This record gives sequence, structure tokens and C-alpha cells, in this order.
Amino acid sequence: MTITGPEGNPKGRILYAVTGWEPANWLNEFARAAPDRAVVTAPDGPPDPSVRYAAVWKHPPGILSSLPNLQVIFSVGAGVDHIFLDPDLPDVPIVRIVADDLTARMSEYVVWQVLDHLRHGRLFREQQAKHIWAEPNQPSAADITVGIMGLGVLGTDAAHKLRHLGFNVTGWSRTPKQVDGVTCHAGNAQLDAFLGASDIVVVLLPLTQDTKGLVNRDMLMKMKPVTPLGGPVLINAGRGGLQVEADILAALDREEGKRGALMAASLDVFETEPLPRESPLWRHPRVTITPHAAASSDPRHLVPQIVRQIEDFEAGRPLQNLVDRDTGY
Amino acid sequence: MTITGPEGNPKGRILYAVTGWEPANWLNEFARAAPDRAVVTAPDGPPDPSVRYAAVWKHPPGILSSLPNLQVIFSVGAGVDHIFLDPDLPDVPIVRIVADDLTARMSEYVVWQVLDHLRHGRLFREQQAKHIWAEPNQPSAADITVGIMGLGVLGTDAAHKLRHLGFNVTGWSRTPKQVDGVTCHAGNAQLDAFLGASDIVVVLLPLTQDTKGLVNRDMLMKMKPVTPLGGPVLINAGRGGLQVEADILAALDREEGKRGALMAASLDVFETEPLPRESPLWRHPRVTITPHAAASSDPRHLVPQIVRQIEDFEAGRPLQNLVDRDTGY
Repeated sequence: MTITGPEGNPKGRILYAVTGWEPANWLNEFARAAPDRAVVTAPDGPPDPSVRYAAVWKHPPGILSSLPNLQVIFSVGAGVDHIFLDPDLPDVPIVRIVADDLTARMSEYVVWQVLDHLRHGRLFREQQAKHIWAEPNQPSAADITVGIMGLGVLGTDAAHKLRHLGFNVTGWSRTPKQVDGVTCHAGNAQLDAFLGASDIVVVLLPLTQDTKGLVNRDMLMKMKPVTPLGGPVLINAGRGGLQVEADILAALDREEGKRGALMAASLDVFETEPLPRESPLWRHPRVTITPHAAASSDPRHLVPQIVRQIEDFEAGRPLQNLVDRDTGY
Repeated sequence: MTITGPEGNPKGRILYAVTGWEPANWLNEFARAAPDRAVVTAPDGPPDPSVRYAAVWKHPPGILSSLPNLQVIFSVGAGVDHIFLDPDLPDVPIVRIVADDLTARMSEYVVWQVLDHLRHGRLFREQQAKHIWAEPNQPSAADITVGIMGLGVLGTDAAHKLRHLGFNVTGWSRTPKQVDGVTCHAGNAQLDAFLGASDIVVVLLPLTQDTKGLVNRDMLMKMKPVTPLGGPVLINAGRGGLQVEADILAALDREEGKRGALMAASLDVFETEPLPRESPLWRHPRVTITPHAAASSDPRHLVPQIVRQIEDFEAGRPLQNLVDRDTGY
């Protein structure tokens, strides 16, 4: 089936292939942003030559290989590791989402959780439940160093916003980066120095073969055992595959002040999602859980960007934010 | 008793008269910042001519009037209303604390609480307790207008930090102010417009005869009944005397969406402090309580500033941050 646009040109259809989200708002936004272009949630049986673009999040494996005219794959959420789970992934360009809205939401989450640890949120909530009026020793942001793992668009924005609140910020990335006001470390050789300097570690790395399971016992043993907050704090808003949850739980239960002891963790992502009901993470008193909701994809902001990229592509202009299949991000 | 400094000059003593705080850190800091000047926690019986300066927080009424040579009163916490509770207050200059550290801490609290409301902190904590994995509709900072009451040093700094995170910010003050990027309202005539524009209202006003009880039923009835967060949110980190707690409780229990209904409140200050154990605020599920700890006074930062002002004063230079007794701040 071929869709014909207002100029009489056939317009490539868009496949919206997403697992776990409500499609209605997305389809409405596509209808608004690309009224001359059809969007489908399933191909017209294999092969479907009408689909030229795919907007995906954890798409059903194999669905893309049935599209003989597929030209571009767009990820509609931050991160692209979900795309590489498809063993029959067609060899076409993959475009990451880089959107101010998504970046702003991720920084909201990071700043929110960093402040909740700095300002003793858990303690004050426990005290409120017991009607206790007492002020603990309160370090200020200037007393704390936040270490950010991953200095792409998300990590850099979070770093700037934490700096603006008075935190010291240090960063770590695979390849050397420069970020204003941030002490940057790079590569395996500088990971220990980075961890030794950070009171709160925020993980915003992409999930690749290199980063899988990086947040494990080895890494936790290299964190500062004593910080102005008591012990070190871990925040992971990157990917669940970056962390070894058994190691995090063991670190949380290690004696305070001992090397490898973790004081608290905020986790938005998990090895298995949704986090299984029986996971001990749910009920650990020093773990804050959010349901992979740190930076939710808002179709009001993301769909117009995808449509604009499609129009640019059809006009012969280059695609932006292309994924490097070798590094996996 | 007269203290003699290293140059042979008599140095005016400092009275540290504070109720409710541990004095040790303060006295240590004074010893470090002014090693040539004695600090006492009580006068040498009335009259005590040796004390020329007083550093006070809720000082015992009458203690200052027994000092015939008192020259300056310094408040060691944000706000000076506590000083005017003394019916025998000597007619000497009163100096407010304006310190970057105090300002930064207040903004930490404001941003922390605003983000906790924006990012559904209460809901996610309830869901975690029940092992529920579900993402609510999440507005972003750009969808929310935070209204700040009080555009002095604290309000202005909080406004800038909220703007940097993407919030829309509007402000209200007694006299007209201009703050970059903030829609400013002033005086009683513009209070309704200010309240009608704000999804979250942050109270950072001084407590004066004009502002006492301002956060009452009348004001709550003028807030937006419906916001992107459901209903309006109140945050008070100013003074407990600004609020009428019975009216806040009634507003919290009003039907959602009705005029005058409050969705949630974060309160750091209370009509009576410590908040009495029997107050229903402690156990209201949509109230977040902190024990007047939003911007705690850190002697490491405040004592050097007081000592510097004393030295300037003795050298004939003008005092900074003087309180206007007519307006009360």
C-alpha cells in the first residue's frame, strides 16, 4: 500500500513499533506533525514495501527485517541498546533521540535525587512518621562532589545544573571530554581516581559491550568509604544492564565506613524491567526506586523532531545524531 | 571586665545569645576568627559594660537591655523577627545575615521540594512500598510555573536556580522588584494575579506586621484549583507566623479540583516550634515536614562575616545589611 501526499508524491510510511507504552498520544502527535504521512503499528504483512521509516522502543525482534524499503530507524527513547537486541537488525542508519525536553527531564531526576540525599530526605521522612523534631548535621552542596559517569549530552547538562546549585562536579567518560567547571577523567586508567574523588556517583552511561556490568563489586570497592553524607551514594539512571544488583545489595549491607559499603542508592533502571516483585531492592530501606521514569519520552517534543529529520532526509540533507554501530551508541 | 587585644587596645566583647542551638561550634569559630576578642554566652551580671556586640537567635528577652555599651546586634540566622520579640530591645543598629552559604542552602531546599512535587516523589515512594511498577503522567519543569513570594536575596537566588532547571518563575513582593527572567508582581493589588499564575507557591517572605497570617484561607482560595500536577502546592520556608495552619489543613482536605483545595504542602516552619507532637500536620499524608532546617546557619561561614563587620565598624566603615525597624526586615 502506497500513501500519496498532497503533492502527488508517494510518502514513505512510518512504522511505530514500541513495547510497553500507550501508543495513542504518539499516533496523535504523528498525525499532527505529519498529516500527509501514514503511521502504522504493524506492517501490512511481510514484505511491506510501503514502510520507509521505523520509530522504535524495544521493537519485536524481526519486525524490521520484513521491511524491504526501510531507510532509517529512529529510537524514541534515550539510549539505543534496545535496538541491538534484534538479531535480524537491517543495515540502515540508526538515529538517537537528542531532545532538549528529554535532557531537561533527566537532569530534573538527577538533581532531585542528589538533593534528596544531600538534604537527608529519607531521615526527615522517617522522623516525620515518628513526630520527631531534630536537625542532623547538614553539609551543603559546596561540601559534596558529585561524580558523573558518562559525559554525553545528558551527563553534561546534569553537570552544569549541579554546578549551578553549588556542587563540585567531576566526570568520567570512555574518551576524553572537556566540560566547563568539571574535572574530567577518561578511560579505565582514570576510573579509580574518579571514584576516589566522588561522594555521590551518578551513572548516565550508554549500555555497550564495554559498560555491561560495570557497576559491580570491583567498582563499589573503589568508591570513597567515608563522605560528608556518611558513606557514598549511587544513582543509576542509565541502564539496568550497567549494574550487578547482587553486588549493590551486598554493598548496602556492608558495615558503614568500611571500604565497599554503600550508604544509599537511587535506581531508575534494573537488570530486569519491570523490577520483579520479589526483588529485595523494593524493600531495602536505603534504596529509592523509580520505574524507569527518569526521562520519559514526551511525544509532544520528540515526534516533531523525528518528522523534521525525515523531511531533511528526503530533501537530501544529512541525518543528525547517528549511532555508531561499532561503539554501540 | 575589659579584654585587651594584642595591640594593647581594649576589644569589645561579643555576647553569643542563642536559644535552641549547640553553642560549641559557634564559640570555636569565634575563637578562630577573632582570637583577640572574648565571646561570652552570658553577661557578667547587669550592667556589663564589656559587651559591645551581640550575636543572637531568639535571645532571652531583656538580656540585651542590661548592656550599657551595646553597639550592634547581629542576627545569626535568616530573618530578624525573633529579635523584635524582645520588648526591651535597645535602640542600636541591627544587622541581618546575608551569606552566600545561607542563600545556597535555602535554594537547595526550595529546588529539592519543588522537584519532589514535580517528580511525584510521594507517589513513587508509596508505589515502592507496595512493589508497584507504574509511571504516572509526568509534566516537565517547562510545564510548571513556580511563584515565589518574597524577592529578596533568598527569593531571587531560588528563582534563578529554578529557571536554570527549566521552570517558569513568577514572583511577588511588597515593593516592585525586577528579576531577570521572572514575571514580577508587587503589592496587594497584584497578589491575585500572582496566585492565579502559580502552580507551586514558595513562601520566602519576612515575618512582619504586614505579612503575619498571610497564608490563610483567603490566599488559599485564590490559588489555581487545577494545575499540571493535579492541584496547587504550597511550600513555606519563610516563617511559621506567615501561615494559618488550620486553614492549610482545611485546604488539604478540600475536594480535589475545587477552589481552595491544596494538593500538597512542604512546611519547614510552623506557628509553634518545635511543631507540637499532637499537630495533625505530622501525619497528613500530603504534608512534608522538616524541622526549621531549610537553611541552617553554618558558623564556618557566618562567624567570619560577623567578625569582619565588627572590624569594619571599629575602623569607622559603615555596617552592611542593616535592618529597617519600620518595615521590620
